[in-house]
Amino acid sequence: MSRIEIRALTFDVFGTVVDWRNSIAREGATWGPKKGLDIDWFGFADAWRGLYQPAMEKVRESQMGWVNLDALHRMNLDQLSNQFGLDVLNEDDLNHLNQFWHRLDPWPDAVTGMERLRQKFILASLSNGNVALMVNMAKRAGIPWDMILGAEVAGHYKPQPEAYSISVELLGLKPQQALMVAAHNGDLVAAAKVGLRTAFVRRPTEYGSNQKLDIEPEHKFDFVADDFLDLADQLGC
Amino acid sequence: MSRIEIRALTFDVFGTVVDWRNSIAREGATWGPKKGLDIDWFGFADAWRGLYQPAMEKVRESQMGWVNLDALHRMNLDQLSNQFGLDVLNEDDLNHLNQFWHRLDPWPDAVTGMERLRQKFILASLSNGNVALMVNMAKRAGIPWDMILGAEVAGHYKPQPEAYSISVELLGLKPQQALMVAAHNGDLVAAAKVGLRTAFVRRPTEYGSNQKLDIEPEHKFDFVADDFLDLADQLGC
Repeated sequence: MSRIEIRALTFDVFGTVVDWRNSIAREGATWGPKKGLDIDWFGFADAWRGLYQPAMEKVRESQMGWVNLDALHRMNLDQLSNQFGLDVLNEDDLNHLNQFWHRLDPWPDAVTGMERLRQKFILASLSNGNVALMVNMAKRAGIPWDMILGAEVAGHYKPQPEAYSISVELLGLKPQQALMVAAHNGDLVAAAKVGLRTAFVRRPTEYGSNQKLDIEPEHKFDFVADDFLDLADQLGC
Repeated sequence: MSRIEIRALTFDVFGTVVDWRNSIAREGATWGPKKGLDIDWFGFADAWRGLYQPAMEKVRESQMGWVNLDALHRMNLDQLSNQFGLDVLNEDDLNHLNQFWHRLDPWPDAVTGMERLRQKFILASLSNGNVALMVNMAKRAGIPWDMILGAEVAGHYKPQPEAYSISVELLGLKPQQALMVAAHNGDLVAAAKVGLRTAFVRRPTEYGSNQKLDIEPEHKFDFVADDFLDLADQLGC
């Protein structure tokens, strides 16, 4: 590994820092019945998340102009309306539902691990989530970011190279001074192409107990960790 | 005042959160003698700061393309070279000197006040300082930002309206939901034109004991405070 010192850790967020699937299901199970919704909320979470990459792809391929992730989530919600009977909801309800993504819970090790990592490194989100989503999530869950970077600030969705390179430039760092932390092989491969260093963190139940993808690292990354506490140990924090 | 709830406080930083003049002088007095520099460091701080608005004005008026404040500070340093005998410095030294701005100290009340304010509000910088400068400053001084916004993220220097409006949009807020906190009348007037609410905080020694400007609020602002503790009191934090 390069001997250039790591100065910042840049984090994927959905699946890596926060457990979106259980959080969406939890929010739905609490709020849905009040609105007359009788839904399999895990199935709903999976279906909603399933539209995530295709929606961003339209922006990446310039089929549509820049819109942030809140707007894409809202478009995707409209697509799910028939399947899940969301037509009983009014506009305020739909906005509330859309903001489920602002209220995701961190994995149990995440905040404690990040508090340790933050003693030694700059911690920045490098997510496709928009700024407001990340700020509200961090505020609610106590996620200790030094800076929120990523797609909306860079104007490019991961895995486009600019999402990584612009984020690192804004920190005044060379790519080699940043360590991309993610639970997804593709994200790390894209970050490595730009020159960032890489840490794969195992999140084997992100997609539930039958998860098939991203169980293990499929490439040679600089670090492989079981969780953020393990990563903090390996980085001497 | 509008009854719309304030959700975020956006802060001017140089002069409002941090005491740039004493900090630059302190850094210079410590480091300068090691480099053979015998300078009136308060005079140097004033001269360097004096070139700040004219340099940004070139960007605002499109006489030059976008460059961040680190780059403008560096250009301004070159202008001061003859006057202060900086030609004895090599490139590494000049870069170190330029980064004095990353190591400014907060006013004595600032961090404690912000920790109180942060319990109730989103705290974001809305400074002309660039992201790396703000991140490094916050990290060193313990300034508890939820988000770093401002000129570099918005692509416009204050007092251009976009510096304020884009920052607030990124937080997902209406302008009326943000309170601009600054020690400078002009900054608050520009923020108010965009629709932000305004808090004038007195920093009567920002420019030293003979300060003439911005001693008192010269317009009707929503809040006027003696320091951040007073502001926290007034906002019920």
